Amino acid sequence: MQNLARQVLKQDIRAIARSISLIENETDITQKEALIDTLHPHCGNAIVWGITGPPGAGKSCLLDRFIEHLRQDNKTVAVIAVDPSSPFSGGALLGDRLRMQKHATDDGVFIRSMASRGHLGGVAGATADAIKIFDAAGFDYVIIETIGVGQTEIEVMELSDIVLLVLVPGLGDEIQALKAGVMEIGDIFIINKKDLDGADRLKSEVEYVLSLKDSIESDSKHPICMTSATQNDGIGNALSQINSYFAGLRDDGRLAQKRKERIEKELKHIATTKIMASANRFLNIDQRLNGWVEEVFQKKVSPYKLLNKKIGDFLQEINWQ
Amino acid sequence: MQNLARQVLKQDIRAIARSISLIENETDITQKEALIDTLHPHCGNAIVWGITGPPGAGKSCLLDRFIEHLRQDNKTVAVIAVDPSSPFSGGALLGDRLRMQKHATDDGVFIRSMASRGHLGGVAGATADAIKIFDAAGFDYVIIETIGVGQTEIEVMELSDIVLLVLVPGLGDEIQALKAGVMEIGDIFIINKKDLDGADRLKSEVEYVLSLKDSIESDSKHPICMTSATQNDGIGNALSQINSYFAGLRDDGRLAQKRKERIEKELKHIATTKIMASANRFLNIDQRLNGWVEEVFQKKVSPYKLLNKKIGDFLQEINWQ
Repeated sequence: MQNLARQVLKQDIRAIARSISLIENETDITQKEALIDTLHPHCGNAIVWGITGPPGAGKSCLLDRFIEHLRQDNKTVAVIAVDPSSPFSGGALLGDRLRMQKHATDDGVFIRSMASRGHLGGVAGATADAIKIFDAAGFDYVIIETIGVGQTEIEVMELSDIVLLVLVPGLGDEIQALKAGVMEIGDIFIINKKDLDGADRLKSEVEYVLSLKDSIESDSKHPICMTSATQNDGIGNALSQINSYFAGLRDDGRLAQKRKERIEKELKHIATTKIMASANRFLNIDQRLNGWVEEVFQKKVSPYKLLNKKIGDFLQEINWQ
Repeated sequence: MQNLARQVLKQDIRAIARSISLIENETDITQKEALIDTLHPHCGNAIVWGITGPPGAGKSCLLDRFIEHLRQDNKTVAVIAVDPSSPFSGGALLGDRLRMQKHATDDGVFIRSMASRGHLGGVAGATADAIKIFDAAGFDYVIIETIGVGQTEIEVMELSDIVLLVLVPGLGDEIQALKAGVMEIGDIFIINKKDLDGADRLKSEVEYVLSLKDSIESDSKHPICMTSATQNDGIGNALSQINSYFAGLRDDGRLAQKRKERIEKELKHIATTKIMASANRFLNIDQRLNGWVEEVFQKKVSPYKLLNKKIGDFLQEINWQ
C-alpha cells in the first residue's frame, strides 16, 4: 500500500489508475483509508474546478478548449467526469468522448469517468477521494464535470474551489434556472455559443440575477464570460477571468475557508459512517429489524411510535439518555 | 393533529394539502410523526405506480391518458411529481403542466410536485410520507413520476409497487439504457410514439435484454406495451397489462414481499436518523469537530487515522468495544 502511494506521488499513471479503482470499488476499506491518509499531507496544491450546465451547452467542447490552453501553459490536468444520473441525462459522458481524442496520448492529461453507485460515501465520497489522488500526484488542475444539477451533483460541485456554470441561449431553461436558484452554486458564468440568437438577452438575465446575489454576498463579484467553444473564441479571456477570480479567493482567505468547510463535511461524513457501523454491530439493529417489519406490515404498530420506543430503550441501555 | 389526520381520512382536499406541506417542511417533527403514525393503519390499499423515462418520451401526455382511463373507470388518482434534478433535466414538471389542464376541476385527481431538498430523509423520505397520506385518504392509485434515473430517482422508484419505464425511439439513448442496466428497475416497458421510425427495432432490443433478465428472475415476465399517447392509441391495452401484472404480484405474494422490504428500508432509515441525532447530542461531535478541521487542514493529521482513533475512544467511553 505504502508502495502504491509512493508510485502515485511519482505520478505513475498506472498507480493512479489502480488507486482510483481501489477507492471506487471499496473492496478493501483499510487499504483505501491507508492510501488516502498517506496521500493527505501531499494534497492542497491542485486548483479544483467544477464545471456543470445543461446537456447541449457545449461543456465537452469547452472543456476541451480549456485543456488545450492549460497545456500550452504547461499545466497538467486531470478530469473526473461524474454522471450519477446516466443514462437519461441526455448527453454522452464527456470523459468518454474526450478520451478518444487528441489528449489521449498526452501524459499531462488524465481523464477518468466515475461510476460509483456502490460507494459507501456515495458518488461525492468517491469523487472527494479521487481529487486527493490527482492532487497528491501533482496535477496542477483537477476538473470535475457533471451533467445536470441534482442533489448529488450539487454535493459533487461543492468539492471544487470554483464552479463554472455553463449556460447556452435557446434551451428554454434559462428562466427556470434563475428561478430555481441553481445559480447559487456558480462562481463563474460562461455563456457558450455566444453567436446564437438570445445570447445577449441571456447575459442580461444572468446579470440581473447576479446583481441581486452580489448585493447579498458583498465579498464576491461573479464574472460572466461569453465564449464560442467550437470557434475557439473567448476561451483565453474566460481562462484569465477564472484565474484572477481564483487568485482573489486565495488571497483574501476565502479559499482556505472553503477548503476547511470541505474538510468539516468530510470528517462529519466519515464519523457518521463509522458510528452507524458500530451502532449496527452493537445494537444488532439488522437482526432485530426482522420482527419489527412484520409488526409494522400487519399494522400492529406504527413506525415512528415503535422506533421512538425501541431507540429510547437502546439509549437507556448505554446511558445516553 | 389527530384532527388533521381525521380530515385526511375523510378525503378533505385542504387537509391533504396541509399534510403534504407539513411533511415537506418538517417544521415540527413530532407533529409529522404523529400524523404518519395515525394514518399508518389505514394504508396499504392504494396501488402505487412509479413512472420514469428520459425527457421527451412523452410521459406527461401518457400519464394524462392513463388518468383519463382510470377516471372513466371511476378510480381516484393522486400524482406526485418528483424532480430532484430540476431545472436542467430538460422537461418542465409534469405536475405543473397537468395541473393547468382538464383534471384541475376534478376532485378525483390530486396532483402535487415535491420539492424537498431540505427534508431530513431526502426526497425519497418525503415521497414515502406523501404516498402514505394519499393512500390513507383513500386514493385508488398513487402515481410517482420522476425524470431521469439517478440515484435519487431509483430510491424514489423503489417506493412503488410497479415501475413503468417509458422509452421512445430515436433519442439515441436506447442502447445506453440497456447497457447501463437501468432496465433492472422496470416492471412494465412502454414504448411510446410507436409510429416513429425505429419503434420496432427498439422493441426488439428491449425484448432481447428482457429475455436475459427473465431467464435470471424466473418469477417475472415483463410486458412491453406499444403506445401513442398523443393519438390515444394503445392506452387501454397498456392499462390492462399493467393491471394484470399487478394482480400477479398480489396473488403470488410478491407484492407483500416488496412492501415488507419497503418497510424494512423505512425503519432502517428512521433508526439511523434517530441514532445519529443522539450520537451527536451525546458525543458532541459537532463541537469537537472544529478543532479537528484545523488539524486536518494543516496536515498535522490524516482524516481516517484521526477518526479511527477518536471514534474508537468514544466507543470505549460507552463500552461499545
